[in-house]
Amino acid sequence: MVPKVHDGLEMALSRNENWKKRMHVLSERLKRIPCLVWKTTWKVGCDDPRRVIHAFKVGLSLTLVSLLYLLEPLFKGIGQNAICAVMTVVVVFEFTAGATLCKGLNRGLGTLLAGLLAFLLDYVANAAGQILQAVFIAVAVFIIGSAATYMRFIPSIKKNYDYGVVIFLVTFNLLTFSSYRIDHVLKMAHDRIYTIAIGCAVCLLMSHLVFPNWSGEDLHNATAFKLEGLAKSIEACVNEYFYGEIEASRDIKSSEDPIYKGYKAVLDSKSTDETLALHGSWEPRHSRYCHKFPSKQYLKVGIVLRQFGYTMVALSGCLRTEIQAPQSVRVLFKDPCIRLAAEVSKVLIELANSIRSRRHCSPEILSDHLHEALKDLNTAIKSQPRLFLGSNDIQANNILASIAASQGKSSLSSVKIDSSALLDWKTKRVSSEQTKEAEQGAERKVLKKSQTSRIAITSLEFSEALPFAAFASLLVETVAKLDLIIDEVEELGRLACFKEYKPGDEFCVSCETPRVSVLENHLPSHGED
Amino acid sequence: MVPKVHDGLEMALSRNENWKKRMHVLSERLKRIPCLVWKTTWKVGCDDPRRVIHAFKVGLSLTLVSLLYLLEPLFKGIGQNAICAVMTVVVVFEFTAGATLCKGLNRGLGTLLAGLLAFLLDYVANAAGQILQAVFIAVAVFIIGSAATYMRFIPSIKKNYDYGVVIFLVTFNLLTFSSYRIDHVLKMAHDRIYTIAIGCAVCLLMSHLVFPNWSGEDLHNATAFKLEGLAKSIEACVNEYFYGEIEASRDIKSSEDPIYKGYKAVLDSKSTDETLALHGSWEPRHSRYCHKFPSKQYLKVGIVLRQFGYTMVALSGCLRTEIQAPQSVRVLFKDPCIRLAAEVSKVLIELANSIRSRRHCSPEILSDHLHEALKDLNTAIKSQPRLFLGSNDIQANNILASIAASQGKSSLSSVKIDSSALLDWKTKRVSSEQTKEAEQGAERKVLKKSQTSRIAITSLEFSEALPFAAFASLLVETVAKLDLIIDEVEELGRLACFKEYKPGDEFCVSCETPRVSVLENHLPSHGED
Repeated sequence: MVPKVHDGLEMALSRNENWKKRMHVLSERLKRIPCLVWKTTWKVGCDDPRRVIHAFKVGLSLTLVSLLYLLEPLFKGIGQNAICAVMTVVVVFEFTAGATLCKGLNRGLGTLLAGLLAFLLDYVANAAGQILQAVFIAVAVFIIGSAATYMRFIPSIKKNYDYGVVIFLVTFNLLTFSSYRIDHVLKMAHDRIYTIAIGCAVCLLMSHLVFPNWSGEDLHNATAFKLEGLAKSIEACVNEYFYGEIEASRDIKSSEDPIYKGYKAVLDSKSTDETLALHGSWEPRHSRYCHKFPSKQYLKVGIVLRQFGYTMVALSGCLRTEIQAPQSVRVLFKDPCIRLAAEVSKVLIELANSIRSRRHCSPEILSDHLHEALKDLNTAIKSQPRLFLGSNDIQANNILASIAASQGKSSLSSVKIDSSALLDWKTKRVSSEQTKEAEQGAERKVLKKSQTSRIAITSLEFSEALPFAAFASLLVETVAKLDLIIDEVEELGRLACFKEYKPGDEFCVSCETPRVSVLENHLPSHGED
Repeated sequence: MVPKVHDGLEMALSRNENWKKRMHVLSERLKRIPCLVWKTTWKVGCDDPRRVIHAFKVGLSLTLVSLLYLLEPLFKGIGQNAICAVMTVVVVFEFTAGATLCKGLNRGLGTLLAGLLAFLLDYVANAAGQILQAVFIAVAVFIIGSAATYMRFIPSIKKNYDYGVVIFLVTFNLLTFSSYRIDHVLKMAHDRIYTIAIGCAVCLLMSHLVFPNWSGEDLHNATAFKLEGLAKSIEACVNEYFYGEIEASRDIKSSEDPIYKGYKAVLDSKSTDETLALHGSWEPRHSRYCHKFPSKQYLKVGIVLRQFGYTMVALSGCLRTEIQAPQSVRVLFKDPCIRLAAEVSKVLIELANSIRSRRHCSPEILSDHLHEALKDLNTAIKSQPRLFLGSNDIQANNILASIAASQGKSSLSSVKIDSSALLDWKTKRVSSEQTKEAEQGAERKVLKKSQTSRIAITSLEFSEALPFAAFASLLVETVAKLDLIIDEVEELGRLACFKEYKPGDEFCVSCETPRVSVLENHLPSHGED
């Protein structure tokens, strides 16, 4: 029995220690919470100081509107419905002026329509008795509720008037039910519209006149920012291809990767762009040069930028693909490729600068150097006719080696090195998978199978230059995509009435710190009344 | 003077005719409106009949809740606040059960917290006099309003609790102001919470029990649908490359293009996926097999699918690029490429089927044929060692011609044909641009410059096989990406407890009509009270 008692004691002791340890960990975590909260809060403000201003603007508007309720003389005129104005400020005040205008108008329109319909129904229902009126109201609520909800699925309504339909439904229900119990519905509807108008007016004045944030401006800056991102991305990509270590890691995206960082803003920009363009199109013109904000053209630029971005993904995929061109092949084309990428990058930066400073882009830099760089790459490829032989061909390997040696570079790390590293990694991975599976048993066979095709790719010895050809071809493809971008940006310049290009402008370098992705400022739109 | 009078008469006549014409056009348009409205309405319902059911569910819930107001005994218990329940139904009832649950809980939590805080402030403020109380309330509204608005920018709050913060702000303002004028605020807060609870309960019961739409289910189906789209896309792409006409058109995307149609659902799926996964993670488990909905794993599958999609974009870009591989080169690799694409497509379809029928995927089809197809392509490429010579090399061209002839095909349409067609098109385009510019004048020089680099690309004579090498390399790259997809789908099967694969299952073909993009069902969330 002694050992058992001993065991029990030990268990109690260890339980006690466990408990202490857990408490300690918990208290440590609790201590860290205020620090973490502060850090997060600070970061949110640092990322975009306009958020702090926006928060104060909302607070100020709320206080202003609350005077309606708090000051006796104002309250007497409006009464209990003053609360409606406060609600309007909470739900209508959006981050940008365009969004606020869009919501405010929707709210006004929805309330007005609902008021009219409710008044009409009230007129009809009042003719009947109490019970019949109740049935009538219930049926009307069912039909109008279903129809309005269904209408929200219609694309054109969903895009522009979804909020209006919700407000319509809310106000309609409110007025219809009130008409059943209260007699002065007309006054109520009148008051409601009146206070909502006051609330909207405060929101619009605050958002348009006090440190306004324009959706159109955001879209404009985001476009320039994306162009710069792509420029950085293509340079980083080509540099890594020729100078960096080739890592065949599975890491599709790490947030620190400069290549990924450059194009990620472009890839998922569709919905943000559309929202900003929609709100931008509601905004009054805020530039004295232009008649109308060309939101559609910005969307078109966004489309071609995404096309460029997809090519960039494929290009950066060449860095991480299973079959890698050996260094000996890469070194032959290093200079023309790097030059071409630099030229493409230069053009992108020039386009970004032209958008930022609202001027047409320089006519000179757009093609001469680019054309030369393309020709160089072409010459380089044509000068190595024997390159695309199968890698088994010993003679070809020798030629490549001698070429590389004659260029004074000792980069003879060939396919074999790459693929052996890959095999190492793969063995590691498979074994770790197996440990995991040892617990799970049955699926092992399936998973192993799924590894097979990856091994299959690397064990094949494709022509050594095949991967490089893909890289070069994609690089040339970026030039073609660049042309589309140039066209659309030119068109944008025309529509947005950019100022003419003056020699000397081209040396202006963008000094603006790129703003954080504007997506993060777009708060989901709720509308609580 | 006579001619002037005549002119005046003619002008009046033509004005009159113009007027008539305009009226006719207008009346024609007006006649078409009802037809158009009906068509749109019908299409919205046909695209996804669940929308009609959802609309009726909302109508029914509204009617149910309105009984609180219409039936005398119920109304006596709750009173004027019954309207709150109706509002709750309008704003909380979402298309899917998960979204409704998420909003309902947010609303409840926000109201509760606001009630507590308002009660606390009321307690403090009541100690002071009337004027001091007003100042105190105004200051509190400013501070709480600013702080809550600022909090909405914090990513973690924005993701899950944004709606809760809005409700908090609305309720807090409502109660604080009411406490200034009305004495029975506690009863009011109590009633409000009570009616909101009733409204939420009706919504939750309706959305979870009556024809429920699950976000998780939608995400599940969307994943399978995207896999099928990619499968169709890759087959269509390879077929067009080898059989279709090569059109170097500028049309980046036409909605009828089967290739684009296949992968477009994948490219912009990020935000939809995230919304569905978020709502899906709120849903109770609705399968007896699985413990928890693996929303994160679905997102991971989405990421690798997008990676595959980007490669598809690059691959389909090869169809429309400026430099085209001549048919004589293509024909040499037609069979292995088409076979490889068919194998990849088969694997994707099998994965889609396995997801649809919630079973692990067949271990057999995943690699053997794929491996063989890869080997074939490899052999084909290695068997043409002289292919990658510069296209100026007459000898090489002759070899290609003889090879093509020996294979009994007469497809000798070479680079020249392609590029001459391109030049035709370009001349047309430039001239049309010029007509446009004749009106605008100044920018002509710039635009012409922007055309130069495109011409530069095509006038270069890259090695003939370069574009084909890119195509082949990207095709091989899809296999690598396919491997990632297989891994993630396997992992998904494990986490979602798919049933074991049984021989015979593999012949099941998906017969389900693919649903319309689920994105279109996700209504923007508003919350009007």
